[in-house]
Amino acid sequence: MSRPVAIVGAGQSDYGDFPALTIKDLFAEAYDELVASIDRGYDPGDVDAAYVGNLGTGGAQLGLASALCTDYVGLDGIPVERVENACASGGYALVNAVEAVSSGERDVALAAGVEKMRDLSGDRSKYWLGVSGDTEYERLAGMTFAGVYAIMAQRYLAETDAAHDHLSMVAVKNHANGAANPHAQFQREIDLETATGAPAVADPLNLYDACPTTDGAACALVVPAEEAAAYTDDPVHVTGCGAASDALALHDRETITSVPAARLAAERAYERAGIGPDDVDVAEVHDCFTIAEVLAYEDLGFAERGRGWELIAEGVTARDGARPVNTSGGLKSKGHPLGATGIGQVVELFEQLRGTAGERQVEATTGLSHNVGGSGGAATVFVYEVGS
Amino acid sequence: MSRPVAIVGAGQSDYGDFPALTIKDLFAEAYDELVASIDRGYDPGDVDAAYVGNLGTGGAQLGLASALCTDYVGLDGIPVERVENACASGGYALVNAVEAVSSGERDVALAAGVEKMRDLSGDRSKYWLGVSGDTEYERLAGMTFAGVYAIMAQRYLAETDAAHDHLSMVAVKNHANGAANPHAQFQREIDLETATGAPAVADPLNLYDACPTTDGAACALVVPAEEAAAYTDDPVHVTGCGAASDALALHDRETITSVPAARLAAERAYERAGIGPDDVDVAEVHDCFTIAEVLAYEDLGFAERGRGWELIAEGVTARDGARPVNTSGGLKSKGHPLGATGIGQVVELFEQLRGTAGERQVEATTGLSHNVGGSGGAATVFVYEVGS
Repeated sequence: MSRPVAIVGAGQSDYGDFPALTIKDLFAEAYDELVASIDRGYDPGDVDAAYVGNLGTGGAQLGLASALCTDYVGLDGIPVERVENACASGGYALVNAVEAVSSGERDVALAAGVEKMRDLSGDRSKYWLGVSGDTEYERLAGMTFAGVYAIMAQRYLAETDAAHDHLSMVAVKNHANGAANPHAQFQREIDLETATGAPAVADPLNLYDACPTTDGAACALVVPAEEAAAYTDDPVHVTGCGAASDALALHDRETITSVPAARLAAERAYERAGIGPDDVDVAEVHDCFTIAEVLAYEDLGFAERGRGWELIAEGVTARDGARPVNTSGGLKSKGHPLGATGIGQVVELFEQLRGTAGERQVEATTGLSHNVGGSGGAATVFVYEVGS
Repeated sequence: MSRPVAIVGAGQSDYGDFPALTIKDLFAEAYDELVASIDRGYDPGDVDAAYVGNLGTGGAQLGLASALCTDYVGLDGIPVERVENACASGGYALVNAVEAVSSGERDVALAAGVEKMRDLSGDRSKYWLGVSGDTEYERLAGMTFAGVYAIMAQRYLAETDAAHDHLSMVAVKNHANGAANPHAQFQREIDLETATGAPAVADPLNLYDACPTTDGAACALVVPAEEAAAYTDDPVHVTGCGAASDALALHDRETITSVPAARLAAERAYERAGIGPDDVDVAEVHDCFTIAEVLAYEDLGFAERGRGWELIAEGVTARDGARPVNTSGGLKSKGHPLGATGIGQVVELFEQLRGTAGERQVEATTGLSHNVGGSGGAATVFVYEVGS
């Protein structure tokens, strides 16, 4: 990055089931919280570009959701665009915002995401998720996303010493965190017995291995680090940014017990930030299914290949562990409004690194977010730092 | 732009009705033509980002169409993203590519677009177009895109001395150009009587005032101007780039006889290029309906407000006129594969400015492209120059 960039404001709507709200309402709720989070000096007229992650709002607004939302909050006339890479849409919106500002192309960029999924009935919901898989080789062959991750989980359990209980422990941990997050869709703890005994979805994954469908929005304001003092005394610096892509279909990947695009994105983010996995204090990772969080530990270098499950078994990634992961509750408990998820992760880390995470607060000066599209067709990883 | 950028290769698929081809096939057809258009020195491994305009492929591949296509042509691992702003998706993909390279963030960027619309039946096709309007205030109230442009046309005909025949002349001109374009969907001339006497679609617009639905893809390779000599002796320099947004719903706009976002994008592109409308030799404009081309003349400054129709009446924008517009055939005759359209315009101007447009060749050293999303919720304008 040619000039350092910082996040000086971030906000999100409640995540949940809001039949009476449109994507404009959800977007405005997140934007209002962002504005409130900026200590001083914010002028909407200074925003010179906006990038909105969104996966189509279940068909209700397939085109121009970008301008629909930004116009609604009064950001008129500026270049805005919808960015879509399935569940990594938010992460890629942030890539665009960070690169636009770091390169000097833009001075104040809004990265946002919004999704409304709860209006969809079960079958339509599966369709809207399935169409982010490879249509020819996966969706039309009957494959669902739960099915894809189940195949990855089956193979992982066969190749390693992990058991399904370790996957359930991810759900238990993330629900414990979500219970402390007033924005979370599920604000309740669950015990291991509940998680292990839930009805099967796609063997070995059960209901508590899967994240919910969610309505929600999130946004973050990116500025040059040298301008951050105009907005706050506590900016969060984005020191690493990595993005990558891969084949959509599982059979076309180099491996199915790792997400190569996430691994590549992590390498790029670490290299740019000049840090390694051991330097990360807190992380938000893409736990669309519990197996995905365990693979993330490995893809991010928190654990060796095949040994990620040990981190959850040993409590390392719990809120009181050595490296807390998904303090927000993660996709599992906070919720997963597709296009918003990658930006919602930023909101949690913005609060953690500034010490405003309340009951969820952990000690951290370096954070990381990890956002995966589909089953790994695209991925982004960011590193955030505060202090010097 | 901090460093000048150039296009060194561009290609497109045939535009038309291809039930046997997927978006991957169409994308590959365009990419192969791009590769063939590069004189020397192209290494796919040098491409370090790709931006793919697409509006959802009629629901067949709503997520990750970006990586699906780039992976298929062997561009593995790089950051790729789908960019969507309705019919300006291609234009915005080019904005991202141009800004990524001009800012120094990327060195070789692929701007692309792809769409498959002909699989949709009439009703589904209208749905897929309608969902780029304002869902609450237009689509659910029964408004179609033809309806929106008909309102604009009604008002324009009421406020100016233009008659519907002038709109029909746009269709006649563009069909004459499309007849000379081997990639065009409609390669046939029509006479004025055919155009004026066609069945009504939305009064005053009839069938020949409307562009078709189309399958197709297009792509362009953007590099730093200082590196262009490694690829060709005849680069096309992108000297101007402007993008803007606006309210989606017509009632929310400042005017309905102009497209304010296009006007703003044009101002920005001219300023960046340091030229004015009089310097433009040839243009590709967004004629989704004939009225849109007339409004484009005015929004781009080729004519004063209310007098754009005089250009078509006087033959100024004909292929043998003083300032040819839509030498490719435009959306009307070449076709309009939504996400590909903004990049397809580049392909025509790349050929015109390099003198390889064959039967359609005009004399030009400065070109302009104009791409509008929805009825004006987003727009992009680019200026291209060759020589010194």
